[in-house]
Amino acid sequence: MTRSATILLAHGSSDANWLAPFTQLTEQIRSGLDNDEHPLRLAYMELAEPSLEHTVTELCQMGVQQIDVLPLFFAAGRHLRRDVPAQITALESVLSVQITLHPPVGLEPEVADAISHVVLRKLQS
Amino acid sequence: MTRSATILLAHGSSDANWLAPFTQLTEQIRSGLDNDEHPLRLAYMELAEPSLEHTVTELCQMGVQQIDVLPLFFAAGRHLRRDVPAQITALESVLSVQITLHPPVGLEPEVADAISHVVLRKLQS
Repeated sequence: MTRSATILLAHGSSDANWLAPFTQLTEQIRSGLDNDEHPLRLAYMELAEPSLEHTVTELCQMGVQQIDVLPLFFAAGRHLRRDVPAQITALESVLSVQITLHPPVGLEPEVADAISHVVLRKLQS
Repeated sequence: MTRSATILLAHGSSDANWLAPFTQLTEQIRSGLDNDEHPLRLAYMELAEPSLEHTVTELCQMGVQQIDVLPLFFAAGRHLRRDVPAQITALESVLSVQITLHPPVGLEPEVADAISHVVLRKLQS
């Protein structure tokens, strides 16, 4: 059976204040998982550790052969359309792993609705 | 009566693909507003127009004296803790306006819950 894993990919920042909520979000998601055997990791595209490269390498060392990357980005710009695909191609060329980059989760309808509610509540308070 | 307005502030990108979902989100929020008299604008911190500076200046020309800035960011790092406050201080020094920078809406509990749901659904599909 192919062993698979998921990486939540955030942009990254040199500022620890920026990183903290992503760690918290990852813990929240992990607590909702009923399958402990499926590794879930948080990685950063740049400016923070663990990097995508480090995380993919570590997962491969655990025997993972298939990785889904879910970007915690609002939208797909240059980073998700060029930089991250290039990182993934480079990793696949040296490791025995298949990596799938998914669309950003940041403005999926359910998330956009939540942001709308938050903003409308602030506007009406 | 003090005339007020709200600016949704996104990071900005030179990539139009990145910008489009923010325009859509702003329209979604605007459609939920029952008060047409309260201007709601989308502006970008950098790399895209309209800029925060342009938008604040335009609102002031309309007679707006008080502006709430709601950042469409996941978290507050260097940009929201240093760059944007500096932009706001500079604007307030030349325009008759009071600008309040709010915490980022991107990981408010309701939004974090929505992202968790989206990720868990993808993990279990």
